[in-house]
Amino acid sequence: MQQVFSDARIAAMPPKGGYGLIDTGFIAIEDGRIVHVGLNLPDMCVGWRRESLGGRLVTPAPIDCHTHIVFGGNRAREFEMRLNGASYEEVARAGGGIVSTVTATRAATQEALVEDALRRLDALIGEGVAVVEVKSGYGLDIETELTMLRAARALAARRQVRIVTSFLGAHAVPTEYAGRADAYIDEVCIPALKAAHAEGLVDAVDGFCEGIAFDTAQIARVFDVAQALGLPVKLHAEQLSHLGGTQLAARYGAVSADHVEYATAEDAAAMARAGTVAVLLPGAFFTLRETQPPPVQAFRDHGVPMALATDCNPGSSPLTSLLLAMNMGCTLFRLTPEEALAGITCHAARALGLEDCGSIAIGKRADLAVWDVAEPAELAYRIGFNPLYRRIMGGEA
Amino acid sequence: MQQVFSDARIAAMPPKGGYGLIDTGFIAIEDGRIVHVGLNLPDMCVGWRRESLGGRLVTPAPIDCHTHIVFGGNRAREFEMRLNGASYEEVARAGGGIVSTVTATRAATQEALVEDALRRLDALIGEGVAVVEVKSGYGLDIETELTMLRAARALAARRQVRIVTSFLGAHAVPTEYAGRADAYIDEVCIPALKAAHAEGLVDAVDGFCEGIAFDTAQIARVFDVAQALGLPVKLHAEQLSHLGGTQLAARYGAVSADHVEYATAEDAAAMARAGTVAVLLPGAFFTLRETQPPPVQAFRDHGVPMALATDCNPGSSPLTSLLLAMNMGCTLFRLTPEEALAGITCHAARALGLEDCGSIAIGKRADLAVWDVAEPAELAYRIGFNPLYRRIMGGEA
Ligand SMILES: [Zn+2]
Ligand SMILES: [Zn+2]
Repeated sequence: MQQVFSDARIAAMPPKGGYGLIDTGFIAIEDGRIVHVGLNLPDMCVGWRRESLGGRLVTPAPIDCHTHIVFGGNRAREFEMRLNGASYEEVARAGGGIVSTVTATRAATQEALVEDALRRLDALIGEGVAVVEVKSGYGLDIETELTMLRAARALAARRQVRIVTSFLGAHAVPTEYAGRADAYIDEVCIPALKAAHAEGLVDAVDGFCEGIAFDTAQIARVFDVAQALGLPVKLHAEQLSHLGGTQLAARYGAVSADHVEYATAEDAAAMARAGTVAVLLPGAFFTLRETQPPPVQAFRDHGVPMALATDCNPGSSPLTSLLLAMNMGCTLFRLTPEEALAGITCHAARALGLEDCGSIAIGKRADLAVWDVAEPAELAYRIGFNPLYRRIMGGEA
Repeated sequence: MQQVFSDARIAAMPPKGGYGLIDTGFIAIEDGRIVHVGLNLPDMCVGWRRESLGGRLVTPAPIDCHTHIVFGGNRAREFEMRLNGASYEEVARAGGGIVSTVTATRAATQEALVEDALRRLDALIGEGVAVVEVKSGYGLDIETELTMLRAARALAARRQVRIVTSFLGAHAVPTEYAGRADAYIDEVCIPALKAAHAEGLVDAVDGFCEGIAFDTAQIARVFDVAQALGLPVKLHAEQLSHLGGTQLAARYGAVSADHVEYATAEDAAAMARAGTVAVLLPGAFFTLRETQPPPVQAFRDHGVPMALATDCNPGSSPLTSLLLAMNMGCTLFRLTPEEALAGITCHAARALGLEDCGSIAIGKRADLAVWDVAEPAELAYRIGFNPLYRRIMGGEA
């Protein structure tokens, strides 16, 4: 299949920086890959199927590199209780908090998890998203962790989208292991990881390094297993406090360290050396009303690529809009619109270890988003507005 | 035309408070008006066209009671300049700020203003919105103020939506009147108001009472004319500082005082006595990164109804989602989800002086929103997610 899109205002989003703008250009596609991008059309493309994009902006299709879209239940009631003045204890007594999501996820069938996640996935796809990372971590027992990952894989069969999974057994200590986090790691997390890997369900291994979850030594034990299995690692690190998670992640050559509000300039330097991407999650920062923004300037100074993601999850970020994540990244973290767009394209691809997408360049997959806007900055500037004109996956319209 | 919607989970949103939930009820409609709401169906409705809503949540169709959706130009470039570190002066020298919107609005034809506004209006309608208030205020000369209001009226002919206009000549002092605000009020604002009223273009009169705009004495002169013309008034008041705008508004029996971050408990008491609604605009608070939230508890204590709106405008709130305004109202201002839903339904209707909409009750217009959610709290809880299943205007599907 050979085709050419003409009259495209192209923001190519090269990983080296800049929009890589081509005012009125051509994108030639063969068998789902980009074979030419530029102001002119090469001779080889004469006679290819040709279609004008009417001068619209074309970007790489967005990538959501950090989500928890597979889960059971609903936390709207807890949201309401809190705003009605319920204390943390009252919410917990009513079965709220992550425990409620774990309980609901364990009770759900794989098909119910898929159906539920599809609504969130469809919201992302409605903004042109081509790749979605999906984490486990609400099972916290071997069988349910596997079910979550199978549900994540099943999403790819239900929609034209690429799913990248992360095993997040080290997300929280389940109530049956309260006070015995190490035993949980040994008896559940690591066996679940091995079983999931054996079934081909794991693309990367994640953890939650925080006072309310696991310390660096516990995470290191999980990462050691990941390394032995040849799996890349990533980490929820320094979200609410500084525990040394980013340094740990860098030591293991992590693809990303996520949240990182409390990361330091030294952490940024270590991430730069390790090639670790900083994944910024403004939806959680907004929802939790955090006040410490991530050290964006330090990331810039050290050349740490910054990605942006929804962190879609029922507790701290019930967000299903990458465009809104861009706006919040600019408004709350003072990213530039260019950084925000790089954050959901080329740098998001890198955060997932994907080299075949995230930019409009020869050899990349022809996963494109066409927008009804004049300037790329409009994507970050508007709030609660979806100007997607067309999502093109592999060049197919 | 007679019809019945059955199997509806109804949040009737009575102005007196509460969701007014009916778990599985009927809504009967005749000639676009609600003639029955309840658990059972009265005999008179036997034989009427009947349709099940499958247990979905039904609310009054949302009302956006404060917008500036008619304007020319685009401020994305200014947003980008600021985030790239440009100073206020550099932005101004590049033609940024409200001046750029005034220039672009003056240069636009009425049809161009309509076309541009339709994209924003369609985003609102996509969330079920039935009524949209639209302000003038980017013309700041007689002819363009009239053109803006004609464009606003024209929107109602292009979509199935109700438009309520506000004359906002006292929005800013145009450059040609710099330092001569009083002359602007006399020579432009008041004559424009009279001309617009004569043409039937004005449903209410608004003003911007702030250090960067007009003081209370100048606003009072505009309100005196409004009063003489028999038009209700409303005011942008106490957004960035406390100038006495809410007290002024209350003295004139204003339908609403808007923004009101810096309003005091005494202001709340005056608003309560005058029946003035507090219109909260979290999109502007978020975008401007304000830190002083409006005195929500004082409004509660004094029984001041609180509405929520997008304030959609190109400078301080490029927001086109009332659902997101609800979430921001809860997250940033600590409204309860019930207050947030009342804020875009019954209290928004009151802020516009409309008595025939905003609640699901006998005699009201059958403008309804049907949502794919189980609980009303979900509407405020989720971020960047549109669960609208169906918008019903006047009972028609
Ligand atoms: Zn997460
Ligand atoms: Zn306004």
